[in-house]
Amino acid sequence: MRNPPLSNPQIGADGALTHLLSTEGLPREILLNILDTASSFLEVSDRDVKKVPLLRGKSVFNLFFENSTRTRTTFEIAAKRLSADVINLDVARSSTSKGETLLDTIDNLVSMHADMFVVRHISSGAPHLIAEHLNRLGRSDIHVINAGDGRHAHPTQGLLDVFTVRHYKKDFSGLKVAIVGDILHSRVARSNIHALNTLGVAEIRVIGPQTLLPAAMETMGVSVCPDLRAGVSDCDVIIMLRLQNERMNGAFLPSAREYFKCYGLTPEVLAYARPDAIVMHPGPMNRGTEIDSEVADGPQSVILKQVTFGIAVRMAVMSLLAGN
Amino acid sequence: MRNPPLSNPQIGADGALTHLLSTEGLPREILLNILDTASSFLEVSDRDVKKVPLLRGKSVFNLFFENSTRTRTTFEIAAKRLSADVINLDVARSSTSKGETLLDTIDNLVSMHADMFVVRHISSGAPHLIAEHLNRLGRSDIHVINAGDGRHAHPTQGLLDVFTVRHYKKDFSGLKVAIVGDILHSRVARSNIHALNTLGVAEIRVIGPQTLLPAAMETMGVSVCPDLRAGVSDCDVIIMLRLQNERMNGAFLPSAREYFKCYGLTPEVLAYARPDAIVMHPGPMNRGTEIDSEVADGPQSVILKQVTFGIAVRMAVMSLLAGN
Amino acid sequence: MRNPPLSNPQIGADGALTHLLSTEGLPREILLNILDTASSFLEVSDRDVKKVPLLRGKSVFNLFFENSTRTRTTFEIAAKRLSADVINLDVARSSTSKGETLLDTIDNLVSMHADMFVVRHISSGAPHLIAEHLNRLGRSDIHVINAGDGRHAHPTQGLLDVFTVRHYKKDFSGLKVAIVGDILHSRVARSNIHALNTLGVAEIRVIGPQTLLPAAMETMGVSVCPDLRAGVSDCDVIIMLRLQNERMNGAFLPSAREYFKCYGLTPEVLAYARPDAIVMHPGPMNRGTEIDSEVADGPQSVILKQVTFGIAVRMAVMSLLAGN
Repeated sequence: MRNPPLSNPQIGADGALTHLLSTEGLPREILLNILDTASSFLEVSDRDVKKVPLLRGKSVFNLFFENSTRTRTTFEIAAKRLSADVINLDVARSSTSKGETLLDTIDNLVSMHADMFVVRHISSGAPHLIAEHLNRLGRSDIHVINAGDGRHAHPTQGLLDVFTVRHYKKDFSGLKVAIVGDILHSRVARSNIHALNTLGVAEIRVIGPQTLLPAAMETMGVSVCPDLRAGVSDCDVIIMLRLQNERMNGAFLPSAREYFKCYGLTPEVLAYARPDAIVMHPGPMNRGTEIDSEVADGPQSVILKQVTFGIAVRMAVMSLLAGN
Repeated sequence: MRNPPLSNPQIGADGALTHLLSTEGLPREILLNILDTASSFLEVSDRDVKKVPLLRGKSVFNLFFENSTRTRTTFEIAAKRLSADVINLDVARSSTSKGETLLDTIDNLVSMHADMFVVRHISSGAPHLIAEHLNRLGRSDIHVINAGDGRHAHPTQGLLDVFTVRHYKKDFSGLKVAIVGDILHSRVARSNIHALNTLGVAEIRVIGPQTLLPAAMETMGVSVCPDLRAGVSDCDVIIMLRLQNERMNGAFLPSAREYFKCYGLTPEVLAYARPDAIVMHPGPMNRGTEIDSEVADGPQSVILKQVTFGIAVRMAVMSLLAGN
Repeated sequence: MRNPPLSNPQIGADGALTHLLSTEGLPREILLNILDTASSFLEVSDRDVKKVPLLRGKSVFNLFFENSTRTRTTFEIAAKRLSADVINLDVARSSTSKGETLLDTIDNLVSMHADMFVVRHISSGAPHLIAEHLNRLGRSDIHVINAGDGRHAHPTQGLLDVFTVRHYKKDFSGLKVAIVGDILHSRVARSNIHALNTLGVAEIRVIGPQTLLPAAMETMGVSVCPDLRAGVSDCDVIIMLRLQNERMNGAFLPSAREYFKCYGLTPEVLAYARPDAIVMHPGPMNRGTEIDSEVADGPQSVILKQVTFGIAVRMAVMSLLAGN
């Protein structure tokens, strides 16, 4: 595990969380605080009136420079259950396409008294840029949540994944975790690796074809395994990654069928893991490409619980950032 | 009139409405209960503060796989006036286009604690599929409203239409109703026929060019009439259907002008109906194609009242499904 | 300054504001009342809970026939801070594209009990058409706000601009105001000129290349100046206009670089104005085309304050129209 970077714009001078940009460099106590807070929000979604007034009168802006209806929806639900006003900006069609710079757009929304930006961007680092800009302006009352930037990070996914692991496995210390698939392009893998290492799992193995494994993975504190069966052997947790269609026919992979044969999670492969191993996937799934339906819908799958936990984790992050 | 199908996923084991999928097989007492409840909601929209807290804290998802701003808006207004949180999913651009199955999308939204799905789909039967899936999961607390599926059904339109008829004609028993236009492709016509038959009108006549009349209409309990003037003679209610532009220049119809000449509702044609006949249209109207402006804006037109009643009927359906 | 037109659909029989269509013909006392009301709303956005219940239960429809995420967002924020229900209609993809007329769309939304329409349209006069239609129907309880129509008017921008001027300059009577850029296509320029003249500024100068200056500007009570340095000399207020990209390579202008050389606001040019002159811009800015970054971000720029004031002004307009 690498040390946190010297300049970490997500942590304020007082050591509290100001933005959520990455699970990398997120102190263990803050990470655990988010998980504990999420636990307390789990029951809100089970209530008859699924609302708490913690963000009443706050303006949350969904800034999705890269389209993702699913992820935007989870943040919209989380914000609405906290009673915030949510404004969805269809950024692809807006001022930025009229030549306005990203920071001019942010300055404008700040002038409209935005309280929180949920940012997804195709470029790695865009949410950092916004957070540093707000910090420079001295606006520690406005918060950025990274909802996925390029290949860099997807911290709320990482957090909901470790929340799920903790829910089912209680203790991280002895756990073996396998992450399977397109590691190279996956911000989910990166965010998971940093969070799992911070929480002290015993071992993380990344598994995938050579063309989809980044160089020098070992420096991230993981072991690399090109063989699926060997990789999942004795694992407690298997995290399957989504294979983007655009990888399929090109330089990276011969075909989806070929991929499934080598890296698809079938009942036969799953049998190599511990009998109580849980199977996770960030969604949306490609059934028959990275995962067999029998596994996806089977008793070891916790994929839909991840979705439920994801709402609670996003509510927790928003609530903590807003100072509750 | 046919018997309700043996398997009717919209009615729960206790006989109560669980989903609204079709006016076909909708028991008379449930149908009347919806109309009565809608009556009580009519005045809510006239209040200074147009809101009641019946769905406060509930999450209503608008899932429009087929785009329809108008219909989506009516459901959004109805849900907001019931104080629900409304989430509009731009499904055309979302996960389903990433290869996720319809039921995986539903499972994900269920895991986010959705309370209600308003579904429009280009394929007949999609809302049924979702309802049956929820029933199989034993989730009788989550409800589906069909907002139009393929050529099959548009039950809230059917209900608001019979609400309108009842409002103006009080008693259904002696009524003669004409439905004019593109019967073949019209889910509105199907939904109206089932609802009107359940409520016991005296006669339903369907009127349109042979190419736009389905075969074996008589099995639905209607009479078929290719001539407009004969068809509307002595009618109490005339329901004009919207002619889709895509029917115009092709196999179905020679031209819009030709269609108007034969099947357009003009003052001259309307004179064949009873003097107190009402004229209805589901909107949006093609003035000069299926209806003359003089009729559309004339004293017998109740087209805009249908829109007003439509909000009340959708509020009633949502409120009843939610258990109020 | 011209007299208000005889038929002014935005003023009711009782002399009160019924619609906001244009700053032209807007009586001085109504204009000042809007500015005073906006002042009182400024602090709402600074509160911890940024909401007042003045429009609770009201339905505000954003009807953007011309796309503008920025402007739509400002109205959405203003309406939500007044506790209204906001419904965004993606009109480009809706019924109007199915051949429905503009007024049929309006009639339908009126039947859904709309309380307010915020209308942006590519055609000059569309909001007037809607307002006159509502007046004809006797629906003085439903209000239209023009959010920009063709080259005609953008009254809330004009109002927030004079609000900004008043905020910094207190008294209008001695002020010299320069408006620089594409006057020909600018509804912002028109709306500013009318409002500034009503409030009695000493002088308005419009500055721009001959191809972008309308004929007969003098009839609007302004002086025309083709030279930028001469034009801004001794001015108290400089309003820069956005140069649409589509003017750049064509009949109007040789190039963006050429334009900046002649009409871009640089520190050197700004020095010709009064030392306490303020610099305004409606946004989004083209840095390096109409304005130098050093000026845009400099101490005389009040561009971001305009955005803040814009929310308060829109809240004021909505609140006054709704009868508060």
